[in-house]
Amino acid sequence: MPDYALIKEELAGIDVEDHPALVKQKSRDFYWYSPILKEQLDHVTADLVVSPKSEEEVIRTLKVAFAHGVPVTPRGGGTGNYGQAMPLSGGIVLNLINMNRVREIHPGRVICEPGIIIAELDRQTKAHSGQEVRFHPSTAQTASIGGFIAGGSGGVGSITWGGLRDLGNILRLRVVTMEAEPRVLDLSTWDLQKVSHAYGTNGIITEVEMPLAPAYDWVDVIVGYDDFMDAVRFADALTHKNGILLKEVAPIAAPIPFDYFTRHKPWLKEGQSVVVLMVAPHSMAPFLAYTEQMKGDIRFRSDTVESMKGIPHAYELGWNHTTLRALKLDSNITYLQVQYPGPDHVAKVEKMTRMFADEVIGHLEFIKFDGRIQCSGLPLVRYTTKERLEEIIRLHEENGCPIFNPHRYTLEEGGMKQTDQVQLAFKKETDPKGLLNPGKMIAWDNPDFDFKSGRNYLFPGLQALGQD
Amino acid sequence: MPDYALIKEELAGIDVEDHPALVKQKSRDFYWYSPILKEQLDHVTADLVVSPKSEEEVIRTLKVAFAHGVPVTPRGGGTGNYGQAMPLSGGIVLNLINMNRVREIHPGRVICEPGIIIAELDRQTKAHSGQEVRFHPSTAQTASIGGFIAGGSGGVGSITWGGLRDLGNILRLRVVTMEAEPRVLDLSTWDLQKVSHAYGTNGIITEVEMPLAPAYDWVDVIVGYDDFMDAVRFADALTHKNGILLKEVAPIAAPIPFDYFTRHKPWLKEGQSVVVLMVAPHSMAPFLAYTEQMKGDIRFRSDTVESMKGIPHAYELGWNHTTLRALKLDSNITYLQVQYPGPDHVAKVEKMTRMFADEVIGHLEFIKFDGRIQCSGLPLVRYTTKERLEEIIRLHEENGCPIFNPHRYTLEEGGMKQTDQVQLAFKKETDPKGLLNPGKMIAWDNPDFDFKSGRNYLFPGLQALGQD
Repeated sequence: MPDYALIKEELAGIDVEDHPALVKQKSRDFYWYSPILKEQLDHVTADLVVSPKSEEEVIRTLKVAFAHGVPVTPRGGGTGNYGQAMPLSGGIVLNLINMNRVREIHPGRVICEPGIIIAELDRQTKAHSGQEVRFHPSTAQTASIGGFIAGGSGGVGSITWGGLRDLGNILRLRVVTMEAEPRVLDLSTWDLQKVSHAYGTNGIITEVEMPLAPAYDWVDVIVGYDDFMDAVRFADALTHKNGILLKEVAPIAAPIPFDYFTRHKPWLKEGQSVVVLMVAPHSMAPFLAYTEQMKGDIRFRSDTVESMKGIPHAYELGWNHTTLRALKLDSNITYLQVQYPGPDHVAKVEKMTRMFADEVIGHLEFIKFDGRIQCSGLPLVRYTTKERLEEIIRLHEENGCPIFNPHRYTLEEGGMKQTDQVQLAFKKETDPKGLLNPGKMIAWDNPDFDFKSGRNYLFPGLQALGQD
Repeated sequence: MPDYALIKEELAGIDVEDHPALVKQKSRDFYWYSPILKEQLDHVTADLVVSPKSEEEVIRTLKVAFAHGVPVTPRGGGTGNYGQAMPLSGGIVLNLINMNRVREIHPGRVICEPGIIIAELDRQTKAHSGQEVRFHPSTAQTASIGGFIAGGSGGVGSITWGGLRDLGNILRLRVVTMEAEPRVLDLSTWDLQKVSHAYGTNGIITEVEMPLAPAYDWVDVIVGYDDFMDAVRFADALTHKNGILLKEVAPIAAPIPFDYFTRHKPWLKEGQSVVVLMVAPHSMAPFLAYTEQMKGDIRFRSDTVESMKGIPHAYELGWNHTTLRALKLDSNITYLQVQYPGPDHVAKVEKMTRMFADEVIGHLEFIKFDGRIQCSGLPLVRYTTKERLEEIIRLHEENGCPIFNPHRYTLEEGGMKQTDQVQLAFKKETDPKGLLNPGKMIAWDNPDFDFKSGRNYLFPGLQALGQD
């Protein structure tokens, strides 16, 4: 057991919290979305929460942690839902939320600290020069930009810009290494893949430079269709209209909207599927003309509603918020993350929709993928057993719809199901003791793990507490 | 012969010009790009040039012209190259270049008069709020926004936004009809197709509302490749990178760049084909990283050159300017306008490139078409005979590459080769005497014309002068 009294002493001057209840609070994210992760990670907690206010304090913290061999798990807003920010082996949670300054805003880019909440970052860049980040998760009101980069992939705006993995969607990351003498590295272009979407396993992000897009007063719109596939076809056709600027296009099948979108219920029609949209104000007239042609039923418009008070943003109906709203009202619901590779993405959606009927309820997000429009999905699943969930995954994959499994806490199992050699090599260089967010990179702990075995990885270092 | 003395009297207070040399100057455009149009239209001239300063003056002019049965051909900057603004039957050229006020600028849109030069419009919207029109022709420095809408289709920026035909890329047009009592109509969404790209045959545009995109200090870049197809493949791959923001992507085959881009010659390499690009400044680092990976040879960058004095904008190497630069130095050159429908557009380009070798020299413009990236082309042609030109056109079309013939002065023959019923119906309603830009809409003059006959249309009302 590390000497936390001594560690606290060595961290004098830096904000440190060790009250067990508060530490536990900062040791969790939305892992409980998944019944499987809920069971595996429910007991996980750190020993200390350290909240640096500057890069210098980050460096001091890592130096102390390295000397004592204490794990460090970075955390932003804690809005991940695969346990990204959960300290599987205890140790220090490095809470970066106080590093929240915007440093510079230029046409097309912003430089800021990692802990700033994305909605606040957008507020500042919009006020400064009518700009905002290219895309954000549905948790923009609570997620930090650094956490999004380390643990996210895309979101609202991905219909135009693709995802964080795409060259140019992150411009620069400044990271501190986990060594006896921590180094500060500036990474750009190809080097960014070393640390983006690595859950903070190979460096602590202390500054980010992100491209900006123009900010508009996006209009929230909900369009109803009696048939889910009509909603999907409308979304697909609409997103191919070059001149209509959209930020969010999410077809969501009945009964999700009427049953779970409680604040929007007065506008919704029972039994209808919907497309949730964000439309640029200057694209509203052409959007409405096209929607009318496509026989869409405009149920809700934020630009004509009497008051938006108490009504969530449209993007808080999409992405992981769709799942969240369902879970709040029905604990038997869980979800998957599906890709429907184009150009026949609509046909794939139709096949899956028919195969599972009401057991898997459609929720798509239209995105740009390698310059082409296609859709990914976060369908809701009426959960029965682990075995059935695995079978549903298998049936998707057998039909050409790869699953990114949200019921796994490792980078590989939730992602590409193979070792990321770039990230592994970078971790060897920057975290030789393997202290950063342990248990998240299988390749580090178990280089021989066979991703094709069908076995799930269980991190041996996962806190034993409550496990048996 | 109309009584022009009386007409001038009735137009008292409006700027009118009848000096033959000056009238002839304002009766021409870049029709001479085409050896065929050069021959057909060289003698065309108006009787009067009327230059209104307001919508009220437009209305007065049309009223007078209608009463006297005088044709009216609207004109902006005169930068068309199919005789769009040439008064085939004489009469009045309605020069709209003095109606050049910007009325309102909002986030995402601008309201202005039709005669403003596009570069000046961009200058004002950029100074106001960092915005610019979504796309413009290569003649932005001399073309008016109204002329672009009436006679153009797309251009620099079409890689992101598609073309003028796409719903949402024009927001509103205000037009004055050619009747005894001219009416003023505001057209939006579907109604826009009645007047956009109609060469002013069915109404005079007096106000436009256009969507805006963010303005950046675009970086001009020229990338060299020894093989034209490598340049094409690079351009195709690059335009599919979601995170790299581009405004212009034009692969241009050797020997065009070295032989004809005289101001850029010091940076170019003989025998190399190039890709001419405009890159957002904040996308330069990822762009350069990707270009290096694709083994592109960066020949020119406007952000590192000592001075841009005397060096044209990159976009003044592309679109119709490519042809212009060649024509300046080699009068045996002409050109075509080709579509290479995707997804196999690169294969189509390769086939055509091999088929014609040095007789047809590749010039492509990457654009967005129905939400997908593909390319159109404005290849240079070493002109021998009309018959060979027709054969080259036929061979393209037989290989799935439709030609938009730039050697025709009618809407239909240069365009879809069929009657546009919407525009025809609107002309019947708004120009019952057929006085607006006569001879440009075959369907009006000869409803029975057979577009499949292979015959070219010759407008009977074309001024006889110099024809025989």
